[in-house]
Amino acid sequence: MSLGEFDLITRYFSRSTARRDVLLGVGDDAALLDVPADRLLVAATDTLVEGRHFLPDAPADSIGHQSLAVNLSDLAAMGAEPAWALLSLSLPAVDEDWLDAFAAGLYSLAERYGVALVGGDTVRGPRVITITALGFIERGRALRRDGARAGDLLYVSGSPGEAAAGLEALRRGKARGPADPLARRYFYAEPRVSLGRALVGKATAAMDVSDGLLGDLGKLCAASGVGASVELERLPVSDALALEHPPGDCERFVLAGGDDYELLFTLPAANAGALEATLAPVCTVRRIGRIEAQAGVRCLRAGKPVPVAIPGYDHFA
Amino acid sequence: MSLGEFDLITRYFSRSTARRDVLLGVGDDAALLDVPADRLLVAATDTLVEGRHFLPDAPADSIGHQSLAVNLSDLAAMGAEPAWALLSLSLPAVDEDWLDAFAAGLYSLAERYGVALVGGDTVRGPRVITITALGFIERGRALRRDGARAGDLLYVSGSPGEAAAGLEALRRGKARGPADPLARRYFYAEPRVSLGRALVGKATAAMDVSDGLLGDLGKLCAASGVGASVELERLPVSDALALEHPPGDCERFVLAGGDDYELLFTLPAANAGALEATLAPVCTVRRIGRIEAQAGVRCLRAGKPVPVAIPGYDHFA
Repeated sequence: MSLGEFDLITRYFSRSTARRDVLLGVGDDAALLDVPADRLLVAATDTLVEGRHFLPDAPADSIGHQSLAVNLSDLAAMGAEPAWALLSLSLPAVDEDWLDAFAAGLYSLAERYGVALVGGDTVRGPRVITITALGFIERGRALRRDGARAGDLLYVSGSPGEAAAGLEALRRGKARGPADPLARRYFYAEPRVSLGRALVGKATAAMDVSDGLLGDLGKLCAASGVGASVELERLPVSDALALEHPPGDCERFVLAGGDDYELLFTLPAANAGALEATLAPVCTVRRIGRIEAQAGVRCLRAGKPVPVAIPGYDHFA
Repeated sequence: MSLGEFDLITRYFSRSTARRDVLLGVGDDAALLDVPADRLLVAATDTLVEGRHFLPDAPADSIGHQSLAVNLSDLAAMGAEPAWALLSLSLPAVDEDWLDAFAAGLYSLAERYGVALVGGDTVRGPRVITITALGFIERGRALRRDGARAGDLLYVSGSPGEAAAGLEALRRGKARGPADPLARRYFYAEPRVSLGRALVGKATAAMDVSDGLLGDLGKLCAASGVGASVELERLPVSDALALEHPPGDCERFVLAGGDDYELLFTLPAANAGALEATLAPVCTVRRIGRIEAQAGVRCLRAGKPVPVAIPGYDHFA
């Protein structure tokens, strides 16, 4: 049965929410939302295109997960508390099984962080998904890219590189689906929402790793007017990654992979140890280098600069 | 020259804004925005797909205009004051002339209503554009679809149907481009932002006509738990439309056309005349019928019900 646009939205994407700050959700021309008076609104939008950001045969629930996760990751990078999302879904046809699974993946993540889906648009077209995520942050407390200062210590969360290794395994036919641990990490990587909140008032700068650690570090440094050095020996290489790949490949995945939604952030050196200790219960973080006055990003091995040529991922390169 | 994702956003879509409520715009992981404490946030998202919502050879500035206009129209339908927008742009390649023109069309409309573009994502893919528009409304004052009551008078703004006639002329090769008045109306229809604001505190219900007057009226009635009758003789038929088409075609365009961004709204009968007079300086509006207790939408000619079979536009029908 073919469903109408209106029914598509109301049938799959209008679950009720417990959020009292949603005065009007899906179903009118626009949503009505109540932002707390003492907070700023934080807004991000990201798009996934079939064949480019997800595989044509990816499990639909993983696409639902990813389309929201990439946006929650942007909010996390600002230290924001996520609240609401709007979904634009362009699909070539109505496939009810696909829609059921997509919605399940999206809502599963949304409900984990108390996010309400408050609006959307469904159109016929190529498979392209855009979500806009909205959240709050205490005034003057947002984590920005431009706050890093020479002397700050540089950190990354969790296990960057796993998702990229999982994607490569899928593309090469070595992993068949989410049963493979690295592939699973690619399909269902978790945005670092709790870590982002925990970094508020602590980190001097933060961003999420979406185009690869080295490339994104370059952006953070440029925004802050500083440079950085990365100690290659300190890069976190997970057991799952080390089990499957030789050290050189692991390093490449960690430095260039971008689908893990890990956070890259800087802490002031003076009390970095104490701050690190407060983050430990929330999320594993690893100090990987240092912010320096000299512009550019340098990789060090045994304290010596070494050339590492890993371009950041660029959609139009 | 091929531009990177980062450069595409900063080069084309990061014009500075005079809005003091934009604390951080394009360039970080998310935007930081200040919603007035006495207002609710109003949020809408709409997507345009090449070949479906715009013609492949449409002037790029008209696509920029339309992609924002369709969203500002949603805000207008709520009575909201537009403030900010986020843009997702999926493009098969970097075409600098196209991007220049697209940005010019988008910013021209944005600046007319004081809207700041505060965030975005550019990806390689089929030509699909999604904008999320954000605005404000005084608490408890939003225009909703569900407020129409039996006895209310039914109105439509401006000249519905012109854009649909323009699109048909373009598709049939009768109009070559924006020089044709009806085609121009299709390419550059103006969202009724000022009328939406003027309706706050006056209209009992409102929505924008996006899928055709009759189809959308059906939705308004369903949301409000009422029905309506439309007097066909009262439909506004513009000179431009009447000059090009016989009366029957004009009626079809007015009842089924949906790209004009006109507003459909209801006023309480008791003081409709006085309210109408206050709207006249803002926008031409026409009383076209009446809200009734009996469910469903009826068309009347010379006071007698007549069958009119015009389905609302449905992307998945």
